[in-house]
Amino acid sequence: MPSPWETKIAPVNGIKRIEPGDQLGEIIAAALKRSAFQLIDDDVVVVTQKVVSKSEGRLVRLDLVKPKKKAKELAAELGRDPKIVELALRESIRVVRKGHGVLITETRHGFVCANSGVDLSNVDEGYASLLPLNPDASASRIRKSLEKATAKRLAVIVTDTFGRPWREGQVDVAIGCSGIAPTQVLAGKKDPYGYLLKVTQPAVVDEIAAAAELVMKKLSLVPVAVVRGVKYSRDESGAKSLVRKRSLDLFR
Amino acid sequence: MPSPWETKIAPVNGIKRIEPGDQLGEIIAAALKRSAFQLIDDDVVVVTQKVVSKSEGRLVRLDLVKPKKKAKELAAELGRDPKIVELALRESIRVVRKGHGVLITETRHGFVCANSGVDLSNVDEGYASLLPLNPDASASRIRKSLEKATAKRLAVIVTDTFGRPWREGQVDVAIGCSGIAPTQVLAGKKDPYGYLLKVTQPAVVDEIAAAAELVMKKLSLVPVAVVRGVKYSRDESGAKSLVRKRSLDLFR
Repeated sequence: MPSPWETKIAPVNGIKRIEPGDQLGEIIAAALKRSAFQLIDDDVVVVTQKVVSKSEGRLVRLDLVKPKKKAKELAAELGRDPKIVELALRESIRVVRKGHGVLITETRHGFVCANSGVDLSNVDEGYASLLPLNPDASASRIRKSLEKATAKRLAVIVTDTFGRPWREGQVDVAIGCSGIAPTQVLAGKKDPYGYLLKVTQPAVVDEIAAAAELVMKKLSLVPVAVVRGVKYSRDESGAKSLVRKRSLDLFR
Repeated sequence: MPSPWETKIAPVNGIKRIEPGDQLGEIIAAALKRSAFQLIDDDVVVVTQKVVSKSEGRLVRLDLVKPKKKAKELAAELGRDPKIVELALRESIRVVRKGHGVLITETRHGFVCANSGVDLSNVDEGYASLLPLNPDASASRIRKSLEKATAKRLAVIVTDTFGRPWREGQVDVAIGCSGIAPTQVLAGKKDPYGYLLKVTQPAVVDEIAAAAELVMKKLSLVPVAVVRGVKYSRDESGAKSLVRKRSLDLFR
């Protein structure tokens, strides 16, 4: 009897603490090799934003951040650290919401998230991490490096942990991807009852990001996972194509 | 060498077309038995809302729906079917946004989604499905029935496919759950760099819902999946506890 498990998720253990300049693709390939884990064609390698940002030097020494007036006022209003607010504002194109100690911004990429993704967790004390400048390009670089090291056709997704309007808790979403189409377009197809689906378009890369988070370990340095068995299309439209156009967005 | 696959996802094949009054737990247990699939303790059984709603008779004959004035006006404004708008309004406590042919409402449960979850796909022609009245109770009933049939300790998640603000595509989220704590609270714990996490609380049931969607098949009647290997806590706070309190919500 064939295995019933269509999709499987493995954490990648043995990734060292990442420093600026580190070549993530090579480091992931080496960690897989040490654990005798063989990638196969169409595996999806999921990498958390934090290690991508570190490898790209997207770290800021907090003692060098001088909050401007707007950041100081906003920080006072929200009861937050003015340096983090300063960085969040620098990384943003606008403030979407503020209140209850929370600052929701729109980043230059078009992502809407807390503090523009500026984060103090899993970095050296005294530093903050910023989102990669171009997470799709980051995913592409890691994919090419991993494909070279393994001689397999792969996809890479860069994830971050976002809160959601109306719902408690956070889920990981794709902020960058390469080698995989971000969505599966079912709109235009008929379901088994003959109904023509009109808008159905699962955000596959976000679903894989969420699935991978189930094996990631924020408390014990497991920032990479492999997801096998997902049927997906390949394209390079990137996670940027998931950002809804302002003209179509009811929530901007 | 132990398997690297920490989490695995299997579609459950052979579920018949569900009718009002069907006992979903028994039907799922029978389908698993036919495919020689053995559940083990702590498996999470994920069930899409559509079959839950059908089994609970949450179907409406469209030819019996008489749209009121408000629904007719809104439907004309959005270019939508007045009967669907009528049902969406009946199922909602308020309209959150409208435009671009889209109606976003808040349901009686507190979920914010398109058309209050009223849907024409995967139901007999001439019918619409409504969300279960109490999806946590639905999950609990299915869990108890499956636990009785299998003598295993299980969790059940009822999912629906929701759009998101700011992002294209949809992901499945948990609208009901039983036997599993909806979130994993990491806030208050320290990461490996010594940083005290402040808000981190992955919405595990939503991540499992998204993961399960990867093997669900909207086009070929696969409305149930099993997810194995997720570490989770057990409680009965339900997916209703994921609904952010109005007083804390920046987006209501």
